Amino acid sequence: MAATSKVWTAALVVIGDEILSGRTQDKNIAQVARWLNGQGIRLSEVRVVPDQQEAIVAAVNALRPAHDYVVTTGGIGPTHDDITVDSIAAAFGVPVIFHPEARRVLEDYYRDRPLGLTEARLRMARVPEGADLIPNPTSGAPGVKMGNVYILAGVPNIAAAMLDALDGRLEGGKPMVSVTVRAHAAESDVAALLKQVQDEHPGVSIGSYPFYRQGNFGADFVVRSDDERLANACAEELRRRLKAAHIEVADDA
Amino acid sequence: MAATSKVWTAALVVIGDEILSGRTQDKNIAQVARWLNGQGIRLSEVRVVPDQQEAIVAAVNALRPAHDYVVTTGGIGPTHDDITVDSIAAAFGVPVIFHPEARRVLEDYYRDRPLGLTEARLRMARVPEGADLIPNPTSGAPGVKMGNVYILAGVPNIAAAMLDALDGRLEGGKPMVSVTVRAHAAESDVAALLKQVQDEHPGVSIGSYPFYRQGNFGADFVVRSDDERLANACAEELRRRLKAAHIEVADDA
Repeated sequence: MAATSKVWTAALVVIGDEILSGRTQDKNIAQVARWLNGQGIRLSEVRVVPDQQEAIVAAVNALRPAHDYVVTTGGIGPTHDDITVDSIAAAFGVPVIFHPEARRVLEDYYRDRPLGLTEARLRMARVPEGADLIPNPTSGAPGVKMGNVYILAGVPNIAAAMLDALDGRLEGGKPMVSVTVRAHAAESDVAALLKQVQDEHPGVSIGSYPFYRQGNFGADFVVRSDDERLANACAEELRRRLKAAHIEVADDA
Repeated sequence: MAATSKVWTAALVVIGDEILSGRTQDKNIAQVARWLNGQGIRLSEVRVVPDQQEAIVAAVNALRPAHDYVVTTGGIGPTHDDITVDSIAAAFGVPVIFHPEARRVLEDYYRDRPLGLTEARLRMARVPEGADLIPNPTSGAPGVKMGNVYILAGVPNIAAAMLDALDGRLEGGKPMVSVTVRAHAAESDVAALLKQVQDEHPGVSIGSYPFYRQGNFGADFVVRSDDERLANACAEELRRRLKAAHIEVADDA
């Protein structure tokens, strides 16, 4: 039974004034969430914090004892506002050092590029003492793993490349399976039915996500469980009950 | 001087399993951030929490004493997974009641619609005792204001309509002004110059946001201050120094 197996959880700390100002639309929450789910790890909380050491330390130290993993995105570049490594070192109470392997990676990467390995670029070889590297196939600067904290880039395609490099390397449990049932009805029309079906299927949760498109109300009912058989059975029963109530159900949502 | 005036801050709690599962790409963080900035209020922290009362209560009670305002999005519909009102009531230690004005609004809205005001729909008139309503011009169900907590819908266009209704009604300070300077250079090439310009302009922060497009590295340098004159002067100086260093600067980013 699902209830007896360990549920692996993670928290995400998105570091970035540009997200909090609304200038940049975050894309890392969704991509980290989906990647974690593929590893059998559930994203349980996200915090978005400004580029301020105190705020980063507080978030990381609140989250790392409470979850199996903490992922951070943002703030690992070469400029003065990139303070994630220093902040994580402060959170762990260790100094920042130059990682010899990171330095070699950057030396290789910048050897034939204009200006070469400048002081600013070398900043990207700095890690909290005791940290390991996360390969970055996209650009030179690696990500960093410190304890259970995984420090990724903020640029979404670089973060994605680092997640690829970590694929299958984190211990997890069973991925959550989602089955979507799309109904052409306002969710308020079927609220009672929905709750009843959920109550009859322990180990399953049903989320209801209304939408309004081309003049019609509709809702996606998302049946979630880490037991695939259970999720499918519950979705099947939900479809049957909706049809019995004369509600149009899309066959494939 | 900016430093002597009060800085108004807000936190946002995004409530929704669909965001944490990666199923739905959040759009409320950016729109709430931009709206708050227009009111002279700075979004200082965001938490994304699951549809669980305990998690919502913990987030709201951690944030409401620390900020002038807390905004929540999500979980105010008619279905069993809509538990925001109950959770905020629990956070404030008050019971949930039917708000007479909300009931009247829903009665009007559903009078000529199929099924009318069902029990499920009437759920949307429930508020924490002592709460006020936030008008919702889009659909029937209003938002809710409880103390300094503003409870908005999760569907982005409905949340936007509620923000419109609140426009100019929250006390705030000076909006943050952002001026973007776009340089056709890798940010690591200009890291030292950037820090120098920031250090010479107290009251201004410069964020560096690299991008890679059509085979070229570039970076947006975002100069931010609540003093417009200062932000413009700093951006002008930054442009001058970049050009002096033979770096191509886009005139209008």
